[in-house]
Amino acid sequence: MNDLSNQPRRIRLGMVGGGRDAFIGGVHRIAARIDDRYELLAGAFSSTPEKSKASAADLGVAADRAYGDYAEMAKREARLKTGIEAVAIVTPNHLHYPAAREFLKRGIHVICDKPLTSTLSDARKLKKAAEASGALFVLTHNYTGYPMIRQAREMIASGELGRIRLVQVEYAQDWLSENLEETGQKQAGWRTDPARSGLGGSTGDIGTHAFNLASFVSGLELAELCADLDSFVEGRQLDDNGHVLMRFSSGAKGMLWCSQVAPGNENALKLRIYGEKGGLEWAQEDPNYLWHTPLGQPKRLLTRNGAAATAAGRRVSRIPGGHPEGYLEGFANIYSEAAEAIIAHRNGNPRPEGVVFPGIEDGLAGVAFVTACVDSSKRGGAWVKFGNYNKG
Amino acid sequence: MNDLSNQPRRIRLGMVGGGRDAFIGGVHRIAARIDDRYELLAGAFSSTPEKSKASAADLGVAADRAYGDYAEMAKREARLKTGIEAVAIVTPNHLHYPAAREFLKRGIHVICDKPLTSTLSDARKLKKAAEASGALFVLTHNYTGYPMIRQAREMIASGELGRIRLVQVEYAQDWLSENLEETGQKQAGWRTDPARSGLGGSTGDIGTHAFNLASFVSGLELAELCADLDSFVEGRQLDDNGHVLMRFSSGAKGMLWCSQVAPGNENALKLRIYGEKGGLEWAQEDPNYLWHTPLGQPKRLLTRNGAAATAAGRRVSRIPGGHPEGYLEGFANIYSEAAEAIIAHRNGNPRPEGVVFPGIEDGLAGVAFVTACVDSSKRGGAWVKFGNYNKG
Amino acid sequence: MNDLSNQPRRIRLGMVGGGRDAFIGGVHRIAARIDDRYELLAGAFSSTPEKSKASAADLGVAADRAYGDYAEMAKREARLKTGIEAVAIVTPNHLHYPAAREFLKRGIHVICDKPLTSTLSDARKLKKAAEASGALFVLTHNYTGYPMIRQAREMIASGELGRIRLVQVEYAQDWLSENLEETGQKQAGWRTDPARSGLGGSTGDIGTHAFNLASFVSGLELAELCADLDSFVEGRQLDDNGHVLMRFSSGAKGMLWCSQVAPGNENALKLRIYGEKGGLEWAQEDPNYLWHTPLGQPKRLLTRNGAAATAAGRRVSRIPGGHPEGYLEGFANIYSEAAEAIIAHRNGNPRPEGVVFPGIEDGLAGVAFVTACVDSSKRGGAWVKFGNYNKG
Amino acid sequence: MNDLSNQPRRIRLGMVGGGRDAFIGGVHRIAARIDDRYELLAGAFSSTPEKSKASAADLGVAADRAYGDYAEMAKREARLKTGIEAVAIVTPNHLHYPAAREFLKRGIHVICDKPLTSTLSDARKLKKAAEASGALFVLTHNYTGYPMIRQAREMIASGELGRIRLVQVEYAQDWLSENLEETGQKQAGWRTDPARSGLGGSTGDIGTHAFNLASFVSGLELAELCADLDSFVEGRQLDDNGHVLMRFSSGAKGMLWCSQVAPGNENALKLRIYGEKGGLEWAQEDPNYLWHTPLGQPKRLLTRNGAAATAAGRRVSRIPGGHPEGYLEGFANIYSEAAEAIIAHRNGNPRPEGVVFPGIEDGLAGVAFVTACVDSSKRGGAWVKFGNYNKG
Repeated sequence: MNDLSNQPRRIRLGMVGGGRDAFIGGVHRIAARIDDRYELLAGAFSSTPEKSKASAADLGVAADRAYGDYAEMAKREARLKTGIEAVAIVTPNHLHYPAAREFLKRGIHVICDKPLTSTLSDARKLKKAAEASGALFVLTHNYTGYPMIRQAREMIASGELGRIRLVQVEYAQDWLSENLEETGQKQAGWRTDPARSGLGGSTGDIGTHAFNLASFVSGLELAELCADLDSFVEGRQLDDNGHVLMRFSSGAKGMLWCSQVAPGNENALKLRIYGEKGGLEWAQEDPNYLWHTPLGQPKRLLTRNGAAATAAGRRVSRIPGGHPEGYLEGFANIYSEAAEAIIAHRNGNPRPEGVVFPGIEDGLAGVAFVTACVDSSKRGGAWVKFGNYNKG
Repeated sequence: MNDLSNQPRRIRLGMVGGGRDAFIGGVHRIAARIDDRYELLAGAFSSTPEKSKASAADLGVAADRAYGDYAEMAKREARLKTGIEAVAIVTPNHLHYPAAREFLKRGIHVICDKPLTSTLSDARKLKKAAEASGALFVLTHNYTGYPMIRQAREMIASGELGRIRLVQVEYAQDWLSENLEETGQKQAGWRTDPARSGLGGSTGDIGTHAFNLASFVSGLELAELCADLDSFVEGRQLDDNGHVLMRFSSGAKGMLWCSQVAPGNENALKLRIYGEKGGLEWAQEDPNYLWHTPLGQPKRLLTRNGAAATAAGRRVSRIPGGHPEGYLEGFANIYSEAAEAIIAHRNGNPRPEGVVFPGIEDGLAGVAFVTACVDSSKRGGAWVKFGNYNKG
Repeated sequence: MNDLSNQPRRIRLGMVGGGRDAFIGGVHRIAARIDDRYELLAGAFSSTPEKSKASAADLGVAADRAYGDYAEMAKREARLKTGIEAVAIVTPNHLHYPAAREFLKRGIHVICDKPLTSTLSDARKLKKAAEASGALFVLTHNYTGYPMIRQAREMIASGELGRIRLVQVEYAQDWLSENLEETGQKQAGWRTDPARSGLGGSTGDIGTHAFNLASFVSGLELAELCADLDSFVEGRQLDDNGHVLMRFSSGAKGMLWCSQVAPGNENALKLRIYGEKGGLEWAQEDPNYLWHTPLGQPKRLLTRNGAAATAAGRRVSRIPGGHPEGYLEGFANIYSEAAEAIIAHRNGNPRPEGVVFPGIEDGLAGVAFVTACVDSSKRGGAWVKFGNYNKG
Repeated sequence: MNDLSNQPRRIRLGMVGGGRDAFIGGVHRIAARIDDRYELLAGAFSSTPEKSKASAADLGVAADRAYGDYAEMAKREARLKTGIEAVAIVTPNHLHYPAAREFLKRGIHVICDKPLTSTLSDARKLKKAAEASGALFVLTHNYTGYPMIRQAREMIASGELGRIRLVQVEYAQDWLSENLEETGQKQAGWRTDPARSGLGGSTGDIGTHAFNLASFVSGLELAELCADLDSFVEGRQLDDNGHVLMRFSSGAKGMLWCSQVAPGNENALKLRIYGEKGGLEWAQEDPNYLWHTPLGQPKRLLTRNGAAATAAGRRVSRIPGGHPEGYLEGFANIYSEAAEAIIAHRNGNPRPEGVVFPGIEDGLAGVAFVTACVDSSKRGGAWVKFGNYNKG
C-alpha cells in the first residue's frame, strides 16, 4: 500500500487516458491543478508505451511512470512507496469499468469520467467493485460543482420552493448536426460508436448530465419514464436527440431534452425547477447567475458570491461576485471536494460535513437512465419503470 | 342582407361577450381599433339586456343595438340595412359554437376567440357550419400575428433552415399556482370549470396557443402524441400542467409544455425550431426579436423591421425597429388581416396574396389537440394518433 | 368657440402635418385611437390643399375639413360649432411655434411633437403663448408614458433609492451612420437640416428625449453641463453624436450620450439611476422590464403589471404582465393622460390626481438643453450654466 | 545569476505580498497554476518574517525561502543557483515601485499588479528602471487576457469596423456605496487610502482597467480628457465615482465611467466601440460573448471558440465554446503569455509572434490617466492634454 505517513499537502494522482488529441483529459488536469490539491505523477495516457511516454514528457511526468497499460500501472503504482493515491480515468466509456476495477481492488481512489460505463451490466459490476473496495469513487458529473447549482440544491432542500412540482431540464448542442464521425474527427468517432460509447449517443453523452443535474438539485427520485429517441443524421448509429417524459416518485413531473443536432446551441444545459412556493432557473453557459422566482414576487437574480449567496455556494467559490468563474472552476470543485474526502480518508476521519460529489450510485443511475430511455424508445415510447434498471 | 353598396372604409362590427369585468373583450376592441378598420356598432356584451346596455354605453354603442342575447342580435342585425358585417365572439368557450352558428348562418363573418369550442363534437359542428356559410371564420390565435413569427414562418417555408427536425414549444404561466378559482376570481373561475372551458385546463387555454403557433410556423402536421397531464393544485378540476411529446408526419419530433403553475412565468410562450441547416428561437415576452442560428455561423439577432426583416414581417409591422410593438399590435394584425379578407369578400375578390390568419381548420385542430392530450393522459400516457381526433 | 354642451365621449381632434410619407403623424393617430378618446376630424396634413385632401381621404376625414394651411384651419375650426377641441402638431420642428400659436390663441388645446421648437427664442415665445392661453399644452415626450417609467419615477419620489447620486442616460441609434440625407430620404433630410430642425442634430432629435426622461424620472434639476458634439459623417451639418457631462443642483452627477452613428443600435434609449439605497435600470427596447437593485440585495426584475407593480404603473397599463405593451401604447398614454386633462378642462374641473404629461416647461427645458450643449461644445467643451438657457 | 542551463518546463516564481487576508495574491497564484507554467518557490508574502513563513507553509513554499522583506528576497534569490526567475508583485500600490526596482535591477522579471504605482513620479522612475533592466515587465491588466477581447482587438486592427468613431467604456461596482473603510474591512481600507492607493480611488482601482482595456482594444491614443470626480460617501478621501470625456488623437471620441457606488453592479466592466462599418460590445461579467454589429446587418453574437472565433481568441482559449471560461482563465492568459516571453528570453529568442501582454508603457499611461483625471476635476472639469502626463 501507499505510504501516506508523511501526509503531504497534495494528493498523488495518476491518469488513465488523456493523451495527445484527447479533450477531457486536459480538462481533468487543469481541474486538478486549480486549487493545488493534486500532483500528477503517473499515467497510462495512451494505449502504447511510446505514445504514453510522449504525453508524459509533455506533462512533466517521469518517463518511468508512463505506462502503456492501465493494469500494469495499477499493479506497479500500488507497490511503490509513494505510488499514486488516486487515479483519474478519462478514457472512452467502455474502458471505465475494466480500468477502474484494477485500481479499486488495490485501494486506489478512482475519479472517473461519466457516463460510468458503456453497459448496465458493467455499471452493476463496477458498483459492486467500488463497494467492495475501501477506496473512494468519484464521478465527474462536473456541472454539480457550479456554485449556483450548490445554492439551488440547498434552497430546495431547505424548502424554499415548497413541494416540487416540475423539473424541466435540457442539454442541447449542435456539433453533431452533420455526419462529423465520417470525417475522422476523433471525438465524434468514439462518441457515436456503440462499441466505445454504449447504447446511448446524446442520451449517454449529455442526457446523463442533464438527468444527474436534475436529480442532484431537486433531490427527486425518478419512478417512470417515456422516451422517444432519434438518429436524425443519416448513417448515425446512436441517438442524436432524445425527448423524455419523467414521473418522479413524489408525484412531481419532468421533461428532459438532449440533442446534438440543435443549431446555435453550444453547451446549452438548462435547468428549471418549480415548486409550490417558487422556482429556480439556471443555464450552464451563464453559470454565475441563478434566477429565483418566489411566487407572487418579482424575479430575483442571484449571483455567485453575490448579495444572497448561501454557504453551500460560497464554499465552492473562489473570487468575488461579478468576476465570472466558469466550467473549469466547476470541474475543479469536484476535484477539490474529492481531495477533502481523500485527505479525511487518509487520516481515518469521516468525510467532512458539506463535502459533496457524485459517486457510484449516481453512475449506476446514469447508465440505468440511458438504458431505460433506449428500451422505452424501442418499445414505441412506452413508459418503463426506472427501478427495473437502477438496481443491483 | 347587409347593404354594402356604399363601401365604407371601416367594417361594421358587433361583439358577443366582453362586458364589464371581462378581459379578452377589451383586447379585441383595442385590436380592432389600432388600424382603424372596424367600427363597433352592436353587441350582446352580457347575458342580460340591462348589463349589455350598460356596457354599450361605456363603449359608445347605441342603446338600441345592445342585446341581451346573441341569437336576437344575429337575427336583428341581419335584417338591418347597415347591420354588422362581422361579429367578434369573446365569451367563455362553451358559447363559441352556439353563438357563432347564429351569425354564420346569416352570412355574418365571425371572429372568434380560441379555443374554438369546449368539445370536439361542437368543433366539428362549427366546422360544418362555417363551411356551409358564405362568411369568413377567423380564429384569434393572436400570437400568429407577431411580425417576427411571420418572418420565422416565411424563413422556414423558403427552406432557410433545411428540413425541420425539432420543434420545442412551451407556454408557461404561474397565475394558477394556487387555488385562485376558490377565491371567486372571475377569470380563474370559468377557465378551470369543465362546463365552461371544456376538457382541457392549461392545455385548452394556452396549450392550444403553443400547438397552433408551432404548427403555423413550422408547417408540420402532427401525427401522434403522448401526453402526461396534471392538476397539481388540490381541488382543481382541469389540468394545470401538460407535458406532451409529438411526432410529426414528416419524421420531425417535438416537445410541448404548458403550465399554469410555474412561478416566475407570466406569459412565457417560447418557440424553438431546428432544421438541418439552422434554427430559430422566439419568445413572446420579447416579441421583437428572433434568433436565427445558421449552422456553423454565429447566432444572428433579427429584429422587427430591422436590417434583415423580410416582406412577411414588414407587412404586419407599423413602426421602425427598436420601437417595440407588443401583444396588442400582434392581436391587431389578426383583425387587420381579417379586414383585408372581408373587404375582398365584399367586393367579390379573392383573398389578397399574403393575407394570413388562423381559421376554422386551426380551430378544429386545437380542440382535437386538447382532446387527444386528455385521452392520452387518461390512458397512462399512451401514444395516440392525432388523425383520429382531427377529422370531421 | 366650440360647443361642448353635449359632452361627447371623445375629443374632437385635428392634426397639422402627418400627410403621406411622414412618420410621426401616423404614430400620433394610432396613439390617439388606442384608448378611443379622440376622433380625428380635421387636418392641415400637408402644405397644399390638394395633398392635404388626399391624406384626409386616406384617413376618413371629411374633405371640407382638410386644409392647406394651419392658420386657416385654426381660424375656421374655432368658428365651427363642433370644431376641433385639440390639435396635434406633427410637423418638422421649425413649424411647431407658428402653428401652435394659432391654435393656442383660439383656446384650442395643443398636443405638440418634440423638440418644442427649432430655436430657443421660439421656445420662449411659445411658452408665453401657452401661458397666455386658456388651453392645455402637451408635449409628446412619449417615453414618459411607459408604465415602468412611471413606476421608476414613483419609486424615486417615494425615496426608495435614497438620495440620488448618479444618472446615466443614453439614446443610441445607427440610422445616420452614413450620409443618408444626400440620398433624398425624407426623414434624414429634415432632421439634419438646421433650417428645419434647429441647432441640434442628434441632441435635438434624441438627446432631448434622453434629457427629458432622466429629468422626469429622477426629479433632478440640471445646474451645469459640458458637451462635446461631433458630426462624424462627412458633409453633415448638425451633430450626429453628443457626449455630455451633467451636474445637478442637488449634487448628483450624470452622463448623457446621444448618437445616430452607433451601428447595431436601433432606438437604444437606456436610463440608469443610482441612489444611496439602490438603483434602477431601464431600456426602451425592452420596456416592460425595470431592474431594481436594492443595495446589498439581489437584483429584482420588475415587470409591467407584474408582482411588484405600483399604482403609477398600473394606471397606464392595459393588459396583464407578460403580454408586452410597446411604443405605441406608451405614446397612447400621453394622449390618454391629455384626454383626462382635457375632459376635466371641459367641465371646469382641476386636472385629476395622478394625471401626468410633459408640458411647455419641459419643452423649453429641452430646447435650452440643446442650445446649452451646442454652446458648450463650440466653446471647446466648457462648462455652462443651464439656468442661463432655461429661462424666459 | 540564475542557472537556466537545464531549461525546466516551468518558470521559477516568487511573490511579494499575497499573504493571508489578501485578495489578489490568491488570484495571481491560481492564474500562474492553471496552465502549469510556473512554480511558486519563494515569497515575501507579508511584512514580517513570521507572517510570511506562515503563508509560505500554507502555500507549500519552503520556509527558508519565505522572506519578511522584498529587498532581502531579491538579493538572496538573485544569488541562488535556482533562485526565482520572475516575481509577482501583489502589494498595495505604493509598494509596487520600490519592490519592482529591487528585482528589475537584478534581472528578475516582474509581473506587477495594477495600477503601476501610486504616484506619477514613481511610475516614471519605474519605467526607467524597467527600460534599464534586461528583464521583462508585465502588468496584470488581466481583462486584456479574455479571448473575446483579443478577438475584438484583432477585428479592429484588421479594419473590420472601419475607422473608429466612438469608445464607450465603463466599470461600475457597488461595494463602496457605504463607508466600508470605517468598518475595518482590509480591502476597503487600503483602496480608499491616499497613502497606499495614490491620488485616485475608483479612477485608480478600476478606471485604469477601463482606460487600459479601451486603449488595448481600440488601438487609439488619448489626446485630451475632461473629468468630473466625486466622493459621494461622506468622509471618503478618494474619488468613488468618475465621469470622463475623452478625445483621441485620431478624432474619435469617448466616454469613460467608473464607479464604486452604483448599486447592483458587481464588476460591470463594459466596452462598446463603434466605427464607420460596425461596432463591438462586450461585458466582463459575460465574457464569453462578443456582440458584433455590422452596419446594415443583424447583430451577431460571437462566442469564445465558437463559429466565428479568430486566431487571436483561439490561442488564449482552452475549452470548447459554450463551456464558459472566466476571470481566472483570463488572468491566467496574462501569466501564460508572460511565460512564453520569459522562455523566449531564457533562450535568447525574440518574443514569439502573437504573444501580447500589458507592459511598462501601459502602466505609465494608467497612472498618467488617473493623474490627469484628478487634475482636470480639481480645475473644475477643465480639458487637459494627456501628453502632459503620459511622458518621461
